[in-house]
Amino acid sequence: MQGQTQQQAYDRGITIFSPDGRLYQVEYAREAVKRGTPSIGVRTDDGVVLLVDKRISSPLMEEASVEKIHKADDHIGIASAGHVADARQLIDFARRDAQINRVRYDEPIGVETLTKDITDHIQQYTQVGGARPFGVALLIGGVTGGEPRLFETDPSGTPYEWKAIAIGENRSTVQEYLEENYDETLPLDEGVELALRALGEIRDELSPEGVGVGTIDAETGAFLELSNDEIQEYLSDLALLEDETADE
Amino acid sequence: MQGQTQQQAYDRGITIFSPDGRLYQVEYAREAVKRGTPSIGVRTDDGVVLLVDKRISSPLMEEASVEKIHKADDHIGIASAGHVADARQLIDFARRDAQINRVRYDEPIGVETLTKDITDHIQQYTQVGGARPFGVALLIGGVTGGEPRLFETDPSGTPYEWKAIAIGENRSTVQEYLEENYDETLPLDEGVELALRALGEIRDELSPEGVGVGTIDAETGAFLELSNDEIQEYLSDLALLEDETADE
Amino acid sequence: MQGQTQQQAYDRGITIFSPDGRLYQVEYAREAVKRGTPSIGVRTDDGVVLLVDKRISSPLMEEASVEKIHKADDHIGIASAGHVADARQLIDFARRDAQINRVRYDEPIGVETLTKDITDHIQQYTQVGGARPFGVALLIGGVTGGEPRLFETDPSGTPYEWKAIAIGENRSTVQEYLEENYDETLPLDEGVELALRALGEIRDELSPEGVGVGTIDAETGAFLELSNDEIQEYLSDLALLEDETADE
Amino acid sequence: MQGQTQQQAYDRGITIFSPDGRLYQVEYAREAVKRGTPSIGVRTDDGVVLLVDKRISSPLMEEASVEKIHKADDHIGIASAGHVADARQLIDFARRDAQINRVRYDEPIGVETLTKDITDHIQQYTQVGGARPFGVALLIGGVTGGEPRLFETDPSGTPYEWKAIAIGENRSTVQEYLEENYDETLPLDEGVELALRALGEIRDELSPEGVGVGTIDAETGAFLELSNDEIQEYLSDLALLEDETADE
Amino acid sequence: MQGQTQQQAYDRGITIFSPDGRLYQVEYAREAVKRGTPSIGVRTDDGVVLLVDKRISSPLMEEASVEKIHKADDHIGIASAGHVADARQLIDFARRDAQINRVRYDEPIGVETLTKDITDHIQQYTQVGGARPFGVALLIGGVTGGEPRLFETDPSGTPYEWKAIAIGENRSTVQEYLEENYDETLPLDEGVELALRALGEIRDELSPEGVGVGTIDAETGAFLELSNDEIQEYLSDLALLEDETADE
Amino acid sequence: MQGQTQQQAYDRGITIFSPDGRLYQVEYAREAVKRGTPSIGVRTDDGVVLLVDKRISSPLMEEASVEKIHKADDHIGIASAGHVADARQLIDFARRDAQINRVRYDEPIGVETLTKDITDHIQQYTQVGGARPFGVALLIGGVTGGEPRLFETDPSGTPYEWKAIAIGENRSTVQEYLEENYDETLPLDEGVELALRALGEIRDELSPEGVGVGTIDAETGAFLELSNDEIQEYLSDLALLEDETADE
Amino acid sequence: MQGQTQQQAYDRGITIFSPDGRLYQVEYAREAVKRGTPSIGVRTDDGVVLLVDKRISSPLMEEASVEKIHKADDHIGIASAGHVADARQLIDFARRDAQINRVRYDEPIGVETLTKDITDHIQQYTQVGGARPFGVALLIGGVTGGEPRLFETDPSGTPYEWKAIAIGENRSTVQEYLEENYDETLPLDEGVELALRALGEIRDELSPEGVGVGTIDAETGAFLELSNDEIQEYLSDLALLEDETADE
Repeated sequence: MQGQTQQQAYDRGITIFSPDGRLYQVEYAREAVKRGTPSIGVRTDDGVVLLVDKRISSPLMEEASVEKIHKADDHIGIASAGHVADARQLIDFARRDAQINRVRYDEPIGVETLTKDITDHIQQYTQVGGARPFGVALLIGGVTGGEPRLFETDPSGTPYEWKAIAIGENRSTVQEYLEENYDETLPLDEGVELALRALGEIRDELSPEGVGVGTIDAETGAFLELSNDEIQEYLSDLALLEDETADE
Repeated sequence: MQGQTQQQAYDRGITIFSPDGRLYQVEYAREAVKRGTPSIGVRTDDGVVLLVDKRISSPLMEEASVEKIHKADDHIGIASAGHVADARQLIDFARRDAQINRVRYDEPIGVETLTKDITDHIQQYTQVGGARPFGVALLIGGVTGGEPRLFETDPSGTPYEWKAIAIGENRSTVQEYLEENYDETLPLDEGVELALRALGEIRDELSPEGVGVGTIDAETGAFLELSNDEIQEYLSDLALLEDETADE
Repeated sequence: MQGQTQQQAYDRGITIFSPDGRLYQVEYAREAVKRGTPSIGVRTDDGVVLLVDKRISSPLMEEASVEKIHKADDHIGIASAGHVADARQLIDFARRDAQINRVRYDEPIGVETLTKDITDHIQQYTQVGGARPFGVALLIGGVTGGEPRLFETDPSGTPYEWKAIAIGENRSTVQEYLEENYDETLPLDEGVELALRALGEIRDELSPEGVGVGTIDAETGAFLELSNDEIQEYLSDLALLEDETADE
Repeated sequence: MQGQTQQQAYDRGITIFSPDGRLYQVEYAREAVKRGTPSIGVRTDDGVVLLVDKRISSPLMEEASVEKIHKADDHIGIASAGHVADARQLIDFARRDAQINRVRYDEPIGVETLTKDITDHIQQYTQVGGARPFGVALLIGGVTGGEPRLFETDPSGTPYEWKAIAIGENRSTVQEYLEENYDETLPLDEGVELALRALGEIRDELSPEGVGVGTIDAETGAFLELSNDEIQEYLSDLALLEDETADE
Repeated sequence: MQGQTQQQAYDRGITIFSPDGRLYQVEYAREAVKRGTPSIGVRTDDGVVLLVDKRISSPLMEEASVEKIHKADDHIGIASAGHVADARQLIDFARRDAQINRVRYDEPIGVETLTKDITDHIQQYTQVGGARPFGVALLIGGVTGGEPRLFETDPSGTPYEWKAIAIGENRSTVQEYLEENYDETLPLDEGVELALRALGEIRDELSPEGVGVGTIDAETGAFLELSNDEIQEYLSDLALLEDETADE
Repeated sequence: MQGQTQQQAYDRGITIFSPDGRLYQVEYAREAVKRGTPSIGVRTDDGVVLLVDKRISSPLMEEASVEKIHKADDHIGIASAGHVADARQLIDFARRDAQINRVRYDEPIGVETLTKDITDHIQQYTQVGGARPFGVALLIGGVTGGEPRLFETDPSGTPYEWKAIAIGENRSTVQEYLEENYDETLPLDEGVELALRALGEIRDELSPEGVGVGTIDAETGAFLELSNDEIQEYLSDLALLEDETADE
Repeated sequence: MQGQTQQQAYDRGITIFSPDGRLYQVEYAREAVKRGTPSIGVRTDDGVVLLVDKRISSPLMEEASVEKIHKADDHIGIASAGHVADARQLIDFARRDAQINRVRYDEPIGVETLTKDITDHIQQYTQVGGARPFGVALLIGGVTGGEPRLFETDPSGTPYEWKAIAIGENRSTVQEYLEENYDETLPLDEGVELALRALGEIRDELSPEGVGVGTIDAETGAFLELSNDEIQEYLSDLALLEDETADE
């Protein structure tokens, strides 16, 4: 009880350290990420796979409108977990940033450069008063100079590079699956399968409309979103396909 | 009691996360939406229907002045539920945005583009200090490239696309009716009937003056508001017409 | 007691929603309106009548200085109830707005346009921090295109159109009288009588100096204030005239 | 006790309404006015009289430095009650305003126009955060177009016009005397006598140095301050003169 | 106890009135003045005398650096009591103001004009948020048009004119002495003696280094500070001289 | 308990001193530094060594993305401990500062100059409101005029120069080891060994990927990062190499 | 207890007076000065001596980097006690101020002028909101017109001139020693000895690296820092030299 009262004293203002040197508002923003449906990123030698879970609350909602995977530029895709409206702000920031790079330097922005521009932007919201931190984590995948890269941004504004990673709800179960099964020599389509099987760890069944998959091929360097038919084929092959008669 | 005290600690500032990663002021703004009279949107292959409930507090009030359905542009209508004055601000924003699009690109704004511009605007009021979130939800219906679209915006600034949706008071009863009876192949006039019957689930009788109906036909791509006579005919056909002798 | 404590927690900042989605500061501003002496508006096919109650605290005060009825433009009058100094700010806003319209478009501003400009202005004070809402309601009467219009603005910034309406102290008694006796085919002078009789419901006697009456005739489209002699005649005819020997 | 605690909750921020629609900071500013020594205004057909009480705390203080009566322009005088330093700010505002009017329109400012400019200025301090209301009331007397006018401004920013009025300490006793003895046909010198006798109701004796008297004659339209000799004569005639042997 | 709790509720923000119309922060700033060593001003027909008490905390401190008497312009001196650093700000303001007057109008600033410019500046700090009032009172002495003037400014920003006045610690004892012994026909050197004897009322002995004396002669109109030798002579004549063997 | 309550009263606002003259928010920011993995700096006559610990939370995270050692300019490296996102802001500041120096003066920035520019920047965040202090300490190593320099910055904005220093977790154990074994005549490669052995005091084993090493040679004046192979060789020589079979 | 609670109510905001007219935040900043290692200033007819104590926390720290004595201009040195990072800000301010004086007036800035510019700057941080006071005291020594001057600035922004003074930890013991042994006719080198012996009162032994000494000779008017060898000689002569075998 004592400890709890103390904590309450420091967790309200974003620009305040607690006596043990923590920023509670940033940690609470991380909780907002954990409340979101999961997203998964897998990087292999052949490219990057982004997978998002798009569960919907009503059969009348359009799954396509559940925005969790975004094209930031021709060669970069971004998946998010957490506060959806906050994610949209960062995606907009990313797109403008990528476009400015093309205009100024006449070349596509580096995946790492873009990531760090975004994390610098996020950090400002954790130090300067008058606003709250972003309640969202991003997975930024892309190809720079023929090399696939996969980054994560968290609400503190720290960038991390990953071979494979899960963010959002039930993150640890999915991450454990990835750690046990990851192999960086996988062809890109097996990377998609790895991501789908990892999500399958926390879902009994999946529907083509309930997930979104984007890939960036190291060779072409182009971000592509899979069609529902393509996803259906993957799910069917992996025996993860939901029984369609139930919901529609 | 303990839980309640804790909650109180986090729900006052809009720019503050609670320890479980929630933004209480945004959630309370959603309550303002639930306090509003209901609005309904139905999208079929032939177009979009927007229906609003305009109950009035005195027989001397002009029903027409109960602003719940608005023309944002020739091809887009917007219905609202919640804080009326807040809705007016967003409608103004939408109209300016649509007009700017026409001037700049010499073409009508896309329904999705407009929706996202509005949700970006809403999101700002949930992150930056010094103002409160908008206490209103919008249904944005229109036709882009011959295709009917129906979006919802909520107080967090998240856009959702729907086949059919209810917002405001008694939302779940109306939404349930829509889920059970929706058919995307309905002609537009049957879409109107579906919406009216859905509202009838929570009202014993309806008057032509007490509801507002707007439609956007996929073919013409034009937003039209039904006259009281047209609404009367619908209500009469559906046996939802209120006994006129009572009130006037 | 519990409920009361909770309420206190949310009713101090204007930019804060309560858990049930209400804006207490706006509701308290409505109480400021209810503390004001009543104002009445009546719209008939022939024009609009605005009536204000100007009770004074000392016989040495000039009744004319109790500002409750104002000319906003040649064709528009405004009556208020509530915080007088706040009303003056909105009247000034209205006059500037009307003048700008004449300069820009070379035509008188529409009554509805003016009303909505005012309510947009009011709404800002309920959403953005650093100021309180306006503690006043306005009745805006005028003629646009030959058609009489009567609007109300409330402290939330919502516009309503009325056939007849009372605001301020004892509003419900006066409104009830209006609802029972209103007839939109009344000639304008009978509209004045209806308003005076409605006020008589909550006053035993009235003096010419203690009320103010403004009319906008549909035909001439001009706002006119009645002289004390004209009011005296009305009161005398209606047997509402106060016994003059008492006060002066 | 309950009531008292509730009140305390709302009376600290100037931009906050209490649940019953009151602005406590404005009401407390009115208390600052009541703590001030009284000022009196009398308007007759022949002009306006302003009278101020200048009691001093030490015989070594110069009575002339107790600033309670001011010339705003050739034709307008202002008397105050309440917070002296606040009054000085409003007087400065009034003088600048009057001067600007002369420069712009090449004619003296109207008494009513000046009053309303001042009350608009005062109102801002009751609605916008970051400052407190003015703790002062003003009596503004002058002549416009040959007609004497006498206005009061209060801390809420409301203008009132009066035939005769008292503000400050023991206001009700003085006002009562004015109400019983006022006659608008009095010549200007009898207006001075009325004001002095009214002040005499709450003072046993008066000294020429302890009061200040200003007049604006309707005919000349000029603001004049009476000399100590002139005041002495009035006091002597009215048997209100203090026994000089006592204090000096 | 009850009263004390209530007071605490209103005395923290400078821009807040208490329920009885007082500004506690201004009153507390007056306490800062009372904590300061005393300063005395005496005005006679021949000029103005300013006397300050410069007690020091260590024999190694330079008495000259205890700044309590300042030359604002050739013809104006200022003595202070209270917060020394605050006094320095106002002295700087006064010097700039005096200089600007010389540049603009090519003549020395009037003593009253300067005083009122300073009090206007002080008042701002009592009404607008974001700063505290000045914790200092000033005595402003000078000659305008051959006439000696002596003004006091207090933390509320009110100007007073005096024949003779004491501010700071033990003010009432000194002021009482002045009231009993003041005579406006005193030659300037007897004015100095009166001020020294008044200070002697609250000090057993005085040293030439422990006091500062400035005079403005009506004839020459020049501000002069007395040398230690001159002060020594006065003190010796008045038998107020401290026993030098004790301290140095 | 009493003491604890008092402390809580002063440790929330960054711009507030506690009664004993401490700035708690700065001290809490120092706790954030102590929560970070350790960094070590060693300066010898031959150059400067920077060593950072890059422990990672998952084998799928890229160690290279754990940013703890940075090149600020050709001749200056910076290592950090504490809040990673905050460190990135200061590194960006340092790089811009170094670049501006080159452009303006056409020469590399001095190590001490750069350090003081950074600490000035940090200090602002401890004095001015609206932001929190930086939760990070930096080690800034470089060569100026052929002379190796090693500085530390702390969250208060104080610069210190060191021969050898550890910051972050378990600082005192590492620092003790450095104090006992430091010798300023060490060749640069033995400086690297000293730093690695010091880190070994608090780690049982180290992997080439788990540490980062940067050196600035006094002769060349160039900042270089060691490759994993080079680090492996050092670790192998020092018998600090982790058993590779365990983790990968 | 009661008193303590009351105090707590007023000591948090820097812009708030307590009921007895004190500014607690300024007084707490003075405590920060008392927490700092001591600095001493001695002024004789031949010049000024500044002595600072530079105790260090680790033998690996460079004593030279403990910044407590600074050259502000060729003829002015500044020693500090208290918050080091705050001192750096004021030193920067002093240097810019001195430089501007040279540019503008083509002559060195006066010691008193510089001191007062600094105290004006400090005072702002005690009156205007949004920042805290400076937690540091400065000793400013220099020569103006051939005359040695020694000033102190405190956190309130008050300037004092001294013959000899100690600030920081154990101030009263050192000051007492100075008061008993000061003689203004001392040659400059004996001034250095006096300062060292005064510091010896609170230290058993001193090392050349542990103290810093700066002098400004009245004749040359140049600020010089003593080398470690020179300090060693002084300490050796005074038998204050620490036993070197112990620490290094």
